Amino acid sequence: MISAIINIHQMPVIRYLLTAALLATPLLATDLPLMPLPAHVTVQAGTVAIDSQFSVSASGPGATDPRVQFAAAQLSKRVARQTGIPLFPKAVTKPEDATVIIQVNHRAAHEPPQRLGDNESYSVSVADGHIRLTAEEPLGALRGIETILQLVQQNHSPDPAGFSVPAVTIQDSPRFPWRGLSLDVSRHFIPADGIKRTLDGLAAVKLNVFHWHLSDDQGFRIESKKYPRLQELGSDGLFYTQDEVREIVAYATMRGIRVVPEFDMPGHSTSWLPGYPELGSSEGPYEIVRGSGVLPAVMDPTKESTYQFLSNFVGEMVTLFPDEYFHIGGDEVNPKQWNTFPHIQAFMAEHKLANAAALQAYFNQRLLKIVTAHGKRMEGWDEILHPDLPKTIVIQSWRSQMSLWQAAREGYQGVLSAGYYLDLMYPASTHYLVDPMKVPLTFKPKKPGDPAPGSPADLTPDQAKLILGGEAAMWEELATAEDIDAKLWPRLAAIAERFWSPESVTDIPSMYQRLDVVNRWLEWLGLQQRSNLELMRQRLAGDAAVGSLDTFSTVLEPVKGYVRHRHKYTSFSPFNHLVDSIPPESEQARRFRVAVDQYLAMDKSTRSSANLRATLSDWANAAQRIRPLLQSNSLLTEDLPVDDAVTTLCAAALDALKYLDSATPPPANWKQSQASNVAQYDNKPVGDFVIPIASAVHSLVNAVQ
Amino acid sequence: MISAIINIHQMPVIRYLLTAALLATPLLATDLPLMPLPAHVTVQAGTVAIDSQFSVSASGPGATDPRVQFAAAQLSKRVARQTGIPLFPKAVTKPEDATVIIQVNHRAAHEPPQRLGDNESYSVSVADGHIRLTAEEPLGALRGIETILQLVQQNHSPDPAGFSVPAVTIQDSPRFPWRGLSLDVSRHFIPADGIKRTLDGLAAVKLNVFHWHLSDDQGFRIESKKYPRLQELGSDGLFYTQDEVREIVAYATMRGIRVVPEFDMPGHSTSWLPGYPELGSSEGPYEIVRGSGVLPAVMDPTKESTYQFLSNFVGEMVTLFPDEYFHIGGDEVNPKQWNTFPHIQAFMAEHKLANAAALQAYFNQRLLKIVTAHGKRMEGWDEILHPDLPKTIVIQSWRSQMSLWQAAREGYQGVLSAGYYLDLMYPASTHYLVDPMKVPLTFKPKKPGDPAPGSPADLTPDQAKLILGGEAAMWEELATAEDIDAKLWPRLAAIAERFWSPESVTDIPSMYQRLDVVNRWLEWLGLQQRSNLELMRQRLAGDAAVGSLDTFSTVLEPVKGYVRHRHKYTSFSPFNHLVDSIPPESEQARRFRVAVDQYLAMDKSTRSSANLRATLSDWANAAQRIRPLLQSNSLLTEDLPVDDAVTTLCAAALDALKYLDSATPPPANWKQSQASNVAQYDNKPVGDFVIPIASAVHSLVNAVQ
Repeated sequence: MISAIINIHQMPVIRYLLTAALLATPLLATDLPLMPLPAHVTVQAGTVAIDSQFSVSASGPGATDPRVQFAAAQLSKRVARQTGIPLFPKAVTKPEDATVIIQVNHRAAHEPPQRLGDNESYSVSVADGHIRLTAEEPLGALRGIETILQLVQQNHSPDPAGFSVPAVTIQDSPRFPWRGLSLDVSRHFIPADGIKRTLDGLAAVKLNVFHWHLSDDQGFRIESKKYPRLQELGSDGLFYTQDEVREIVAYATMRGIRVVPEFDMPGHSTSWLPGYPELGSSEGPYEIVRGSGVLPAVMDPTKESTYQFLSNFVGEMVTLFPDEYFHIGGDEVNPKQWNTFPHIQAFMAEHKLANAAALQAYFNQRLLKIVTAHGKRMEGWDEILHPDLPKTIVIQSWRSQMSLWQAAREGYQGVLSAGYYLDLMYPASTHYLVDPMKVPLTFKPKKPGDPAPGSPADLTPDQAKLILGGEAAMWEELATAEDIDAKLWPRLAAIAERFWSPESVTDIPSMYQRLDVVNRWLEWLGLQQRSNLELMRQRLAGDAAVGSLDTFSTVLEPVKGYVRHRHKYTSFSPFNHLVDSIPPESEQARRFRVAVDQYLAMDKSTRSSANLRATLSDWANAAQRIRPLLQSNSLLTEDLPVDDAVTTLCAAALDALKYLDSATPPPANWKQSQASNVAQYDNKPVGDFVIPIASAVHSLVNAVQ
Repeated sequence: MISAIINIHQMPVIRYLLTAALLATPLLATDLPLMPLPAHVTVQAGTVAIDSQFSVSASGPGATDPRVQFAAAQLSKRVARQTGIPLFPKAVTKPEDATVIIQVNHRAAHEPPQRLGDNESYSVSVADGHIRLTAEEPLGALRGIETILQLVQQNHSPDPAGFSVPAVTIQDSPRFPWRGLSLDVSRHFIPADGIKRTLDGLAAVKLNVFHWHLSDDQGFRIESKKYPRLQELGSDGLFYTQDEVREIVAYATMRGIRVVPEFDMPGHSTSWLPGYPELGSSEGPYEIVRGSGVLPAVMDPTKESTYQFLSNFVGEMVTLFPDEYFHIGGDEVNPKQWNTFPHIQAFMAEHKLANAAALQAYFNQRLLKIVTAHGKRMEGWDEILHPDLPKTIVIQSWRSQMSLWQAAREGYQGVLSAGYYLDLMYPASTHYLVDPMKVPLTFKPKKPGDPAPGSPADLTPDQAKLILGGEAAMWEELATAEDIDAKLWPRLAAIAERFWSPESVTDIPSMYQRLDVVNRWLEWLGLQQRSNLELMRQRLAGDAAVGSLDTFSTVLEPVKGYVRHRHKYTSFSPFNHLVDSIPPESEQARRFRVAVDQYLAMDKSTRSSANLRATLSDWANAAQRIRPLLQSNSLLTEDLPVDDAVTTLCAAALDALKYLDSATPPPANWKQSQASNVAQYDNKPVGDFVIPIASAVHSLVNAVQ
């Protein structure tokens, strides 16, 4: 029972959630379960009750905006869902009598959908029985409503049973105007309902760009009426109809989210070619790619027919996507065919294109003309950056901040994705510390002491403004529609805070405290990061009870980085293993590590290992109880080694605590043998897993004298 | 950790789920995780593998039926969902090469939707690498596909990792042609997505009637275009649009489910009257009812305008509901206004109507003409039975089997709902033992030894055929859209087995074994009986970890019958308490009771209490760990007494096991004092709860010598 260490005294407490009577000191902004943390928050004494009289009014020139009307109507429904209080539509006679009084000072600068840079600022004041939300423009009202919803919390005894919002004053606006998620739906298709759930989540944490990676080698995921063989032969039947796309774009628009489509060209484009092999550099025939990697197929940039096709295609797509930006991919072009096919070599010679990069720049310039002719600004990954391209393009960097800063010096706008790859299974804290305006912690100088190239401090204010923000990226080779929610959430909320909140907001314990609450709050939107994984574990457990497998899974994390790709999965591989059914980051293991650090830092006379031992016993018992299951279930037998590892680690830790708690020294050789038992799992994978308590256990063993 | 007693050796084992190599005896039908159990099942050695080559073909004259085409397409999708194996649409060149070969011998006797009595029989044969499903007509194919999906199970080691279907031969057809759920959406509205989830569940357990209780005193839930004030003033804005109704009827039709609408008249009709007070017996004005009970408002059967309104209204509704039957309610008419209002008394005298029942019969005859004129057969609750009504009507009995048998003797068709009220929170076994053709166990003769009136054995075969089947009923005064799945499932699956399977299928341990597997299987359809309750408990726990509250909740059940109605809830009452967040029946407590019985029946020298003690310790620890939470959370403080009760019971049981396991006798007075501690909870509620291990703990204490 993990709750041994997560009783309400020991767990990181969001102090607001305790009754005010218990609090000796004023609340801080970071005591509120808000994520992203607003720019300015002050907390006063008192609350406004949320009960069956709850009502909402919206006034001011911007209040008639359809997005504000929708969000205000949703506010009541979501409060009802979060609290269980039935709320029926109510006619509020005077706007000033409503519980939530929304004032939108101005109409939007233009009709929906929003554009980059639209005003998202708002303020909230909770006092005198009302929650007052004031926004300059409609988008600010949407952002403020999300903040209000996060503030609704259960009262604590001796306050009356029910819910309330604490008395606060908030002034808030985003640090960056471009805050997004790039989602790959090519490697594994995510049906429309999964996209809508994701959009609900994005809006809830104030992200405002949904970058839709619609095509790649493994699948072409959107219906073209002009070129229907794209989806007919490129998608296995798994694609969005144009009606679905329109519905999703409208859904995003109502939530203040821009939709930027990406069609990756000229590489990562195999799925276009089964239907239209004439687009490819080789003659074909082509098939959808079932594996992954940087593949040989690449469009033929030497044929005019390629550009005619792309012009028609882009012309069709821009009718579906109203956003100003159009992403053409441009990453990881495999130069092999271009460098070897005679007709392409001849073309390069003729056009004095020295190498494949120059040929890609030529292709991009042609594409730029097409995109521009259809009224769009072009976006692409790092590789498209080339002096011949105009300053209107936007660079999305998968390489590093440094390349963005360099681009900014040259006058290009940029968006950072390096450091925000959610598919690599790193903890929230890793992404949280990545900042578009800071040298990454992972930067390794060529020579010790060398500065990072181009510190952002050297950028002029105008250049700095060209860094528009960032996008988390989720590549889907190893993720499916079944587990996408858990791959995105809650880690994406921490990244959202990085993009929205002031640069100074960097306290990791505070982030995790708030992330934990927000993670559960997100479930009221229908996100399935918990329930879907439980169902997957239930499938693995089959006929047996899943409780011990659930407990056991809380001491595991998937391997990090690209290690799991060694299995060479294909589109036909089932992702129904234990490693697929656990979250990328174990909150229970993180708490255990914090508790171990606290224990080791305390004086021997005052510390207690009771909670640590209870947690370890729960994990050890779970490991023991599931052994018959692992031995008998065909999908679980592969997990016996990790069961051994957890058993070893828990035993070593319990042993170490025994010696640390008592005056008795361990037997000779104990420390050496346990340290070597434990070291084999410390920062080392066991199959597809890491055991994220191994380093803490190592510390416990090392602390024994 | 409840899993202490639910390890795979001790838990009721569905033997098929163990590897065939471990089995010394042939499998039985009840070893298969099938519910409802088919009429005839034989099990052979061997399996058919389910892997990424899975495919489906459908042939024969009935295979082009849209329902068969849809179900066959869903079969692949659902196998993919159940197994995690990616399945792309495949072109099968020869039907006989498919994994699942569906043969439908005849077209349906008429176009969809189905009608009462349509052929639902099918057979399944799993052998030689194929699953052959043969049905006479399209509906049989739908039923057989559900059976096949229940057979898909994970292989057990040493078989290869993956899934398979065991070699079986099944011939199956239903016992009763009318197998339904009556769902009240008036007391609490269930949005369209909840209805669709419910329809998925009904189809999965072969239920074929969705009886939609669309109006009652507390809400009028369907859009009328002829009389729009019905929904405008009668629904708080919570109603189904006609588009939604058409969509839901089509959704049900594709799943082989009839939709029978009910408009309750002339009582239970207050919600019609705010918009159209002229329909009521009094002058009004009327308001939607916020409480519950048998209320005074009743339609005025003396005015011709009432019948003109109802004729127009029924005329509009029959365009939405294609089923042959139309339910007019007719239950619980409060006679007070009829018995006291002069204009109604005068009408009764003029028409020689002796009492309110005679006046209702007059109303029903007028209504019958309207319903018949619009091409429908009339259905109603017990009270509509009257000698003047023709034999074409169907009686739904909330009173008992005996009244149905009596009606059958008089030539009326009937459907049983008495004994199947899911809102009363009784365990699955209680409903399971209720049979439309058997004297209920609750029957109490007036004098000891008196036989039950009208044994079904006295019915002629033709009369017996008039008992069409049954309907579970879910009344929604205390249930909401949030917890409806848990109120229905899994208990509804046990009732479905009663209606489908042979009368002889009555073994309760077998039922529970299969129910447990099927309950989890149903979640793959998107049913939320587990995940929604978890979310509700998380809301209660607020900032604290929910694990211990989850464990604690497994030793609780809600009070049974109508006890909880003493709180006089209204439409504004939040149902967000702990009792709302737990299932009606605790599977863990049931297993504990079974284990106690086994322990007490065994010889002292061979029995072990280890698992019992582990379970009790888990519950006791959870009760202790959540005390600070119960003390601090405003919605949980009311639950401190049940925490005390669980603590007392677990302590008494652990104490008793200590004495039962050892040779040491207890101190003097121990037994007396513990028995009195325990007796206060044995079959007695604690607040809104019962503690379903209390009787077993009582037995343990009593067994101490």
